[in-house]
Amino acid sequence: MKSIITSLVVCSFLLSACGRTDDDNMLRIREQGSFLVGGSVITVPGSYDENNPTNPAGQTLHGDHAYVFYQIPEKTHSLPLVFLHGNGESAKTWETTPDGREGFQNIFLRRGFSVYLADQPRRGKAGKSTVSDTLRAVPDEAFQFEIFRVGVWPDPFPGVQFSPAPQAWEQFMRQVTPNTGAFDKEVVSDALSALMDKIGGGILITHSMGGGPGWLTAIKSSNTRAVIAYEPGSSFIFPKGEVPSPIPHSGPEKALEADSTSMDKFLKLTRIPIVIYYGDNIPEQPTKHWGQDTWRARLEMARLFVDCINRHGGDAQVIHLPDLGIKGNTHFPFADLNNVEVADVMSAWLKEKGLDN
Amino acid sequence: MKSIITSLVVCSFLLSACGRTDDDNMLRIREQGSFLVGGSVITVPGSYDENNPTNPAGQTLHGDHAYVFYQIPEKTHSLPLVFLHGNGESAKTWETTPDGREGFQNIFLRRGFSVYLADQPRRGKAGKSTVSDTLRAVPDEAFQFEIFRVGVWPDPFPGVQFSPAPQAWEQFMRQVTPNTGAFDKEVVSDALSALMDKIGGGILITHSMGGGPGWLTAIKSSNTRAVIAYEPGSSFIFPKGEVPSPIPHSGPEKALEADSTSMDKFLKLTRIPIVIYYGDNIPEQPTKHWGQDTWRARLEMARLFVDCINRHGGDAQVIHLPDLGIKGNTHFPFADLNNVEVADVMSAWLKEKGLDN
Repeated sequence: MKSIITSLVVCSFLLSACGRTDDDNMLRIREQGSFLVGGSVITVPGSYDENNPTNPAGQTLHGDHAYVFYQIPEKTHSLPLVFLHGNGESAKTWETTPDGREGFQNIFLRRGFSVYLADQPRRGKAGKSTVSDTLRAVPDEAFQFEIFRVGVWPDPFPGVQFSPAPQAWEQFMRQVTPNTGAFDKEVVSDALSALMDKIGGGILITHSMGGGPGWLTAIKSSNTRAVIAYEPGSSFIFPKGEVPSPIPHSGPEKALEADSTSMDKFLKLTRIPIVIYYGDNIPEQPTKHWGQDTWRARLEMARLFVDCINRHGGDAQVIHLPDLGIKGNTHFPFADLNNVEVADVMSAWLKEKGLDN
Repeated sequence: MKSIITSLVVCSFLLSACGRTDDDNMLRIREQGSFLVGGSVITVPGSYDENNPTNPAGQTLHGDHAYVFYQIPEKTHSLPLVFLHGNGESAKTWETTPDGREGFQNIFLRRGFSVYLADQPRRGKAGKSTVSDTLRAVPDEAFQFEIFRVGVWPDPFPGVQFSPAPQAWEQFMRQVTPNTGAFDKEVVSDALSALMDKIGGGILITHSMGGGPGWLTAIKSSNTRAVIAYEPGSSFIFPKGEVPSPIPHSGPEKALEADSTSMDKFLKLTRIPIVIYYGDNIPEQPTKHWGQDTWRARLEMARLFVDCINRHGGDAQVIHLPDLGIKGNTHFPFADLNNVEVADVMSAWLKEKGLDN
């Protein structure tokens, strides 16, 4: 009996030292790292002259790649999640939230998914562009408050899922980072499809302006096994002959236009499951508050988009989070105060589609 | 006896399930995340007009902060490591090496250090600048091959610690990322000292052009407990009246000048341990190969700098890696083929100075 107690005490000590019993919150990472993927090379004819190093003759420029940071947890589902940010953002958008909680990077690592966080070409750590550009430092944050549906400047929407702490707004505005070359959805989707091919298959999760390159990535690489789009804002794509009329709104562009592609390419979107999520405070009727009104047009276009995919045999859906009783979300549902609930909705969809094996 | 065996079997099973005994290579992360720190705010007088959102009146711009990604391992030394990249780089410089091995981020996480990886203001994910700028896409990679001391274009130095695989060179050139606003060492050191104050103390590790802001960070924040500088290239700082003459070299600037500060500020550098590392292929005599020759001047200036610190009572040293028998290192020793050996040298210094408690 004494021996049994001794061995149990030793066993208990060893288990305690192994950490798992003490702290189940530890992230166990099998592998993590970063790389650049895709992109192009400019080669200038001539010979390099070391006494004139600013002369490009004989020199090269590698640019227009994506930067990717990845983490593979100890036990992982077979398909990784590949995250593509929106306009004015980098992969930071999926990391710690503006109010300091865990974002989708950590939430889905903890749920056993490998995560690949991309900075798209000409953004963030993938700043080396093949085209020159001028960057203007223009104060525009009241505009961002409205277009991101936090509220009507300077008042937050009642019940909005954005922290009222001033530090949260400050972090949110500081995570904005500019293009280092003109946005080009072909360049972005070329790099993202190179990423999909490199990793041999993944689930693409896009946000906002990442939506357009997201559809193109799925068209370009059959290694894109599913697309989850949070609040896509533009570049909905339809087969030629089925492109809907522009949808009027009160924003500066006056209407939201759709893109067109060949039927052959469009049909690739019918071969994978697709889900699109939108948050709250999107008006049902036209309004002069155009920061909201553009989203009314976008939600309407998203519905036309999934209808088109489905009538060609696909599996797409739009989920307007308030229809599930999930209220108050901004343009960044995955970073909002209720982002665990938003993640639960995504997890349920992954399970339903058999994407979490 | 049977009971003892049973309990030992159970114990063994549980230990095996805990993972530690099976796979000692797993990274155990207690906490990871990212934030923006430091920076300033521009506020434009007037009122925001939602019908004219590109008019900055009444709007703000948050800019000039640093972006920081951090990881805290399960068991950590008391002082974290804070990494600041060099010119044309982001924190990627400390992540996976160009040839795909682990960089200092993972190496020092495995050695039990918390790591804070900064993108300096106006670079990488901290791209939001308070000043406008024009970015030019100019092919210049033969120049980089020389100034980074990989070789004399297009031939690598014999025995250079840089992989001959073409993919390594491609990754290396793609990790370069531009300024999104003019480099300003005061702006960079303001953000880095805000970081040091936020985390309450750390060991600053700089590379190349990060060296100058590094000395200023140590002067501005007493939470900078030590500085490790890899290949600082400019902005060596001396007390007024003790600034050495410019050191001639064959590069375009013709000579390397030093900066000056007040004695009061300079003396802050005498209160912490400082070590400076340089790699190989730095000539002892002037040469027309100016990509190497500028480093001769820099190494010489670094020696004058540590002499000055030490004669005022400090603890600084320059370690030229070839003097330790460590050969072939480029301008990026921490990412070179022998970076584990380079890390060992750093670990030994940390231990010697009692910085790994």
